[in-house]
Amino acid sequence: MFKKILYPTDFSDVAMKAFDYVKQLKITGAEEVVILHVIDQRSVETIATHTEKDIITLERNWEESAREKIAPLAEELETIGYRVKIRIEEEVPFRDILKVEDKEDVSVIVMGSHGKSNVAEMLLGSVSEKIVRKAKKPVLIIKR
Amino acid sequence: MFKKILYPTDFSDVAMKAFDYVKQLKITGAEEVVILHVIDQRSVETIATHTEKDIITLERNWEESAREKIAPLAEELETIGYRVKIRIEEEVPFRDILKVEDKEDVSVIVMGSHGKSNVAEMLLGSVSEKIVRKAKKPVLIIKR
Repeated sequence: MFKKILYPTDFSDVAMKAFDYVKQLKITGAEEVVILHVIDQRSVETIATHTEKDIITLERNWEESAREKIAPLAEELETIGYRVKIRIEEEVPFRDILKVEDKEDVSVIVMGSHGKSNVAEMLLGSVSEKIVRKAKKPVLIIKR
Repeated sequence: MFKKILYPTDFSDVAMKAFDYVKQLKITGAEEVVILHVIDQRSVETIATHTEKDIITLERNWEESAREKIAPLAEELETIGYRVKIRIEEEVPFRDILKVEDKEDVSVIVMGSHGKSNVAEMLLGSVSEKIVRKAKKPVLIIKR
């Protein structure tokens, strides 16, 4: 049913709550988890403009920080028997999640209902709503 | 994780696809399924107006037809070890699903991404989108 799980995370509380479900889904025969963190292209540009930092450094810091946060998650999943693939990519989050859904041919997407950028999401709709609308595979949305 | 599953259905193809997932979730330790069919209050009124049939007869026919369609599903679930509860209610579908989510204190909602009334959903957003936005519990959306 859920052989290969795509778990997009922005490390928010609800994304961590979704992580618990990813772990528990092992019992369904799930074998592999793709942990995906998308560095929001638009945020990088905005921050760079406002802080006059250069984009390359920002991206490198963001990516390093993501790698550090993902490492213990990956280890935890491997301990319970999952194969784990880590993807850190720079894009618009919902677009990248849909791309990875295709490329990795996953069986299900498990994610939190809301990301960190709550205000933007209230205005524009959450990433998870877009995923529910446009994904091809089943989507398990974990709520706050 | 998913002790009690709420499975709202309008008997569309994608709702039947969601039914397969409900069955497969047994393996996670799920024990009970609430099968919910909501007779759309608004449709009953519209049809009654257009056909000059009386509302009571319409409702009774709709309910009977739903009961006939649910019976084999309930049996199938019981065969694989589920306890099953059937609810057929007249309301606005997304509102009733949220009410039942609360009343039955379910662990997860499993449903299809789109219902039968495709045109209305294209304009107004699908029932599943509203559920994803407003439910308190995890929602597993199965796509067409």
